[in-house]
Order: sequence, then C-alpha cells, then structure tokens
Amino acid sequence: MIKIGLDAMGGDNAPSAVVEGAVLAARGAAGRYGIVLTGPEDIVKAELSRLGWTDADTGIEVFHAPDLVAMDDSPSAVLKTKPNSGLVACVSLQKAGKVQASISAGNSGAMMAACLMILGRVGQISRPAIACVMPALGKKTVVLDCGANVDEKPATLVHFGICGSVYAEAVLGRENPTVALLNMGEEEKKGPESLQEAHQLLKTAPVNFVGNIEGRDLLKGEVDVVVTPGYTGNVVLKLMEGFHEYHLKLFGAVDSDAGRQFEHDWDYSNFGAALLLGLNGTGLITHGRADAKAIKNGLEAAFHQASAGVTEKIAAKLAQLADAETPTA
Amino acid sequence: MIKIGLDAMGGDNAPSAVVEGAVLAARGAAGRYGIVLTGPEDIVKAELSRLGWTDADTGIEVFHAPDLVAMDDSPSAVLKTKPNSGLVACVSLQKAGKVQASISAGNSGAMMAACLMILGRVGQISRPAIACVMPALGKKTVVLDCGANVDEKPATLVHFGICGSVYAEAVLGRENPTVALLNMGEEEKKGPESLQEAHQLLKTAPVNFVGNIEGRDLLKGEVDVVVTPGYTGNVVLKLMEGFHEYHLKLFGAVDSDAGRQFEHDWDYSNFGAALLLGLNGTGLITHGRADAKAIKNGLEAAFHQASAGVTEKIAAKLAQLADAETPTA
Repeated sequence: MIKIGLDAMGGDNAPSAVVEGAVLAARGAAGRYGIVLTGPEDIVKAELSRLGWTDADTGIEVFHAPDLVAMDDSPSAVLKTKPNSGLVACVSLQKAGKVQASISAGNSGAMMAACLMILGRVGQISRPAIACVMPALGKKTVVLDCGANVDEKPATLVHFGICGSVYAEAVLGRENPTVALLNMGEEEKKGPESLQEAHQLLKTAPVNFVGNIEGRDLLKGEVDVVVTPGYTGNVVLKLMEGFHEYHLKLFGAVDSDAGRQFEHDWDYSNFGAALLLGLNGTGLITHGRADAKAIKNGLEAAFHQASAGVTEKIAAKLAQLADAETPTA
Repeated sequence: MIKIGLDAMGGDNAPSAVVEGAVLAARGAAGRYGIVLTGPEDIVKAELSRLGWTDADTGIEVFHAPDLVAMDDSPSAVLKTKPNSGLVACVSLQKAGKVQASISAGNSGAMMAACLMILGRVGQISRPAIACVMPALGKKTVVLDCGANVDEKPATLVHFGICGSVYAEAVLGRENPTVALLNMGEEEKKGPESLQEAHQLLKTAPVNFVGNIEGRDLLKGEVDVVVTPGYTGNVVLKLMEGFHEYHLKLFGAVDSDAGRQFEHDWDYSNFGAALLLGLNGTGLITHGRADAKAIKNGLEAAFHQASAGVTEKIAAKLAQLADAETPTA
C-alpha cells in the first residue's frame, strides 16, 4: 500500500490544520493509502486525540521528528541543521522506502532542497519544476515552472514540457496531451532568446508540442500543459491567486451556479498542492496558508501522483529524448 | 493647441471605428486639442461624411497617406516600404512639429519601430517600453514593459521605472509615486539575476523605489508603478485581458454596482491606449480590436500625455540618473 509522509509542522496553520487534514484524508482514503505524520510525537499525538483519533483508528502513523523549520530558514541550511524536522523526515522516509510520497505546507524552498538532495533528480533533469494545475474555462492546465527556477536554459524548458506532459497523461488522464510554450506572440521568432531556442527544441521533443500561446490563452483551457520560465510562472500563479482574492473582495461569494463554479475552480484548496516534478520520487508542497481541506486534497494529489508512476514515466520519456539527442549518422 | 496624429487605417475595425472615434473625441474635446487623421484622403473623407461631419465642423484635419500597412508586415520594413502610410505619416508629422502626439491601432511593432526611428529615444534610454495602466482594487497601476523588449539589461529596467514614475506623477497626479519591481519574492536576493541587479540599481535611482512585489500584489493597487521585463509584462497584460474575457463568459454582464465597477475597470476601451514611454515624443498604440470608444479614449490619453510634458520630465529624471552615475570623487 502507498504511504504518504506528511510534515505535521509545516505551514501557518500547523500542526492543527495539518493533522486535521490528515484525519479527513485517512477517513476518506478508506484504506487506499496510509499517512505518516512527521513531527514532534507528543504534539502530533495530542492533536490526533483532540480530533477524536484513537488507537483503534487505522491509516495514520506518527514518526517522531522534533526539529522545527521556520518559514524564513535558509533552504540550503535546513537539511544540515534540522535533519530531524518533520519537513526533512517525510522526505528521508521516502528515500528509505517507508513512504512513497512526501508533502509539506512549510518552507517551500527548504522542501524543494530536501527533495533535491535526498531523492535526487530523475534522468538528465537539470532542475525540477513546481507544477500547478490551474483553472480555465475549458480543461484545467498544468503550468510549469511556477517558481522553482530562474534563468533557465532552453533544454530545461524542454524538460518542463516532458514532466508536465507525463503528469497530464498519467494523472489527469489526458490522451497525447498538448504542450504549449507561453510566449508574447504566436510566431516562433517571438520572445526571449531562450524561449525561441526552446521552441525549436520542443518541436522534436517526445511531446505533443502545439507551439506558442499567449497570456490571454491561459484561461481558455485549450491546451493541457503550459511551459514557462519559473519567474514568469510564479507571477502567473500569484496573479491567479490575486484575481481570486480580488473577485472575492469585489463581488463576495456569488450565490449562483457560475459563482459556485468559479469558487470551485479557483479555490486552491480544492486541488491542494503544487507538484515538484523532475524528482526521483514524489514531492509536493502546499500553500503556507493551507487549511485542513487543502491538506486533505494535497494528500489525495500525492496519492494519485505516486500511484500513477509519474517518476518512472518521466524517466522513460527522458530516455527517448536522450536517444533523439544521440547522433545516429 | 496640441494636435494628435491618428492613423486612420490602423486596426481590425479601421477605418470606420477609427474615424468614428476621432469624431467622438473631436466633439468631446471642445477645442482642447485637434486631430489629424492620416490615411487615404478619399476613404477618410467618405467616412467623415458618413458620420455627418461637415466642412463647418472643426477639430479634425485629414492628411493624405495612401499606403496601407498590414498587421503582419515586418515592423522594420514598414518605415522604408510604406513611408506614405497612415501609420508612418502620423509619426512623421510629429517629427515635423505639425502634431504633438501620434497614435495607431495598427501593427504595434511597426508603430514602435516608426516612433523609434523617426522620433528617437529620450536621453540615455536604451529601448522604450510599452506601459499599460492596469485595473486594481486600490489605485490603478502603471505596468511596464508590457512587451516591447526581451532579455533586458538591469539598467533598462531602471529606465522603465523612471519612465513609469514620471508618467504616474505627471499624468495620473500621483505624488512621489511608488515604484516596485515585480518579482518572485520580497527578498532582494530573489528572482532572475537581471532582476536582482535591477533591484540594487533602483535603490539609488531617482524614483521612490519600494522593493519587490509579487504577482498577487498586482491587483491590490498599493503601488503606482510596477517594473517587469517585457516578456513577463506581456504575459501579465494578456492574462488580465483573459480574466476579463473569462469573467464575461462565466458570469455575463453583472447587473450590480460591483459588476459595473468591474466592467468599468477591466474594459480596456475605457483607457484606450498603451503608452510608448522613453521616446523623444509622444507615441501610443491601441488594441488591434479597438472600437470607436477605445479610439476616443486613446486620443484623450494622448492629449493628457502630450500636454503634461512627459517626455521633457523623463529627460530631466534621466539627467539626475546620469549625474548620479558620474563619479564625483
């Protein structure tokens, strides 16, 4: 059975919201997967008791990890200075084969660093990306990178496309998913030099590349995967969150089918997590402000990703890319 | 009196919407400014007649410019091959001192190229930017560059900040306008290398630099000017347009105070134009889909920019920057 390591102490609302999310997920999982809460044992167990969790309940274990990571701790230092934190422990357990996915609502830079150092990268991936499943009028879209990287080389953008494509197919069930490059015009000679080069590389990469799209197209939901550098993807992600906040402030909760549809699609807690794609393993981060619902849905996302074998499928696609890059004549 | 050169043949709805917009503006201008429509004289005059414009009406002149520019003409070629087009003529008239601003809804790359080659740049500006006044919950925000440039050097981003700051003060009436850098975190060590360097340069530039903001903050309207590279600014601009379209499709026109506020703030035709800042003159572009209202409001924006002396004020700020850059010890 798949088990998921969950950092009990990560995020603004930890540990109460995190433990509550774990309980919600365990009750909904109905034996599909197990959860290992990593954090100070006494604190986590007290939260579980508070929520009516007893020794008779199954699906949640606690792994003692007493160190605490702060949101402003240096990501690169956390691994060395706080190896016995909930954040590092949930990843170390994956490396040891005790869990098959790891998730934290805490310091996202530290979580990425821990995953990168402990799990490593898959294939020839240079840097893993943060992928987000974003709302759109049509089908939801996997957008990456949403902020793990800066100043990416063209080949890195191609890796993003492969990772996103595999996820869209394996987890979202999209057939031969379309991959687009976010650019400032449809023509291939548009945009920063690195994007123009990436455009050429994507044409022959083992993905269904459909060319450039523009910012306006993001919300149409006509493609499955959108590739963009981390700086711009992060601006897009945060602007989408900003639009949701703006809408709530201007209109309040809209009591209509359209209003409920909007809230369902735009409330991040309904998906719950961003995906760290390109790792040799399954790592996810959730919003620092994650509530119990976001944690529960993040655990579901982790389960689906781990059980779909995303890592292995990315490795297979990367091998195709490597074959294509090897001169044969 | 200020006169504005308007490319009668630019945009998807030219010449009818453009000429209609000119008539609306001329009737609303009440002698504050004049309009020179540049295009094939017979076509433009026929449109004017159709709209009931007679020789007794004042405020619109026609300048004969028979060449036609297509939306997909190479921007760099238009100036050489179509010097007698409405697009080039409205800029040439500014160079000759016959008009004080130029505006086109046509091929925006060609308009930028014509302005750049004919009017030139102000001070030590390396490349002019496209600036857009964007909606927000608080005050509207000047965002630049929205797509004129790629792969900017840090000093170019500082020039964007100066241009935006001058515009916000001179035209929008903001006192000591705040300038922020759009980034992927508040800390100065965040983001692409060029942004980290720009952050340091902006600290000592002659603007009221308030540090980094994130995508989520764009819609809060807490700062006056937001600086970002052209690629990302273009994605932001188009995504904002996408939000508006998405909202219309999901909710339709919302019949409430909030709905009317939203439509007022997000309908680009209410501002009508994007500003080409950093030119030695006043150039504006409007949306290719501009209707008569957008053209009218674009002409108003051109009038306000030209009469506020934005170019001269940018030159003065750039001189301060140059002074600061000259070693004194």
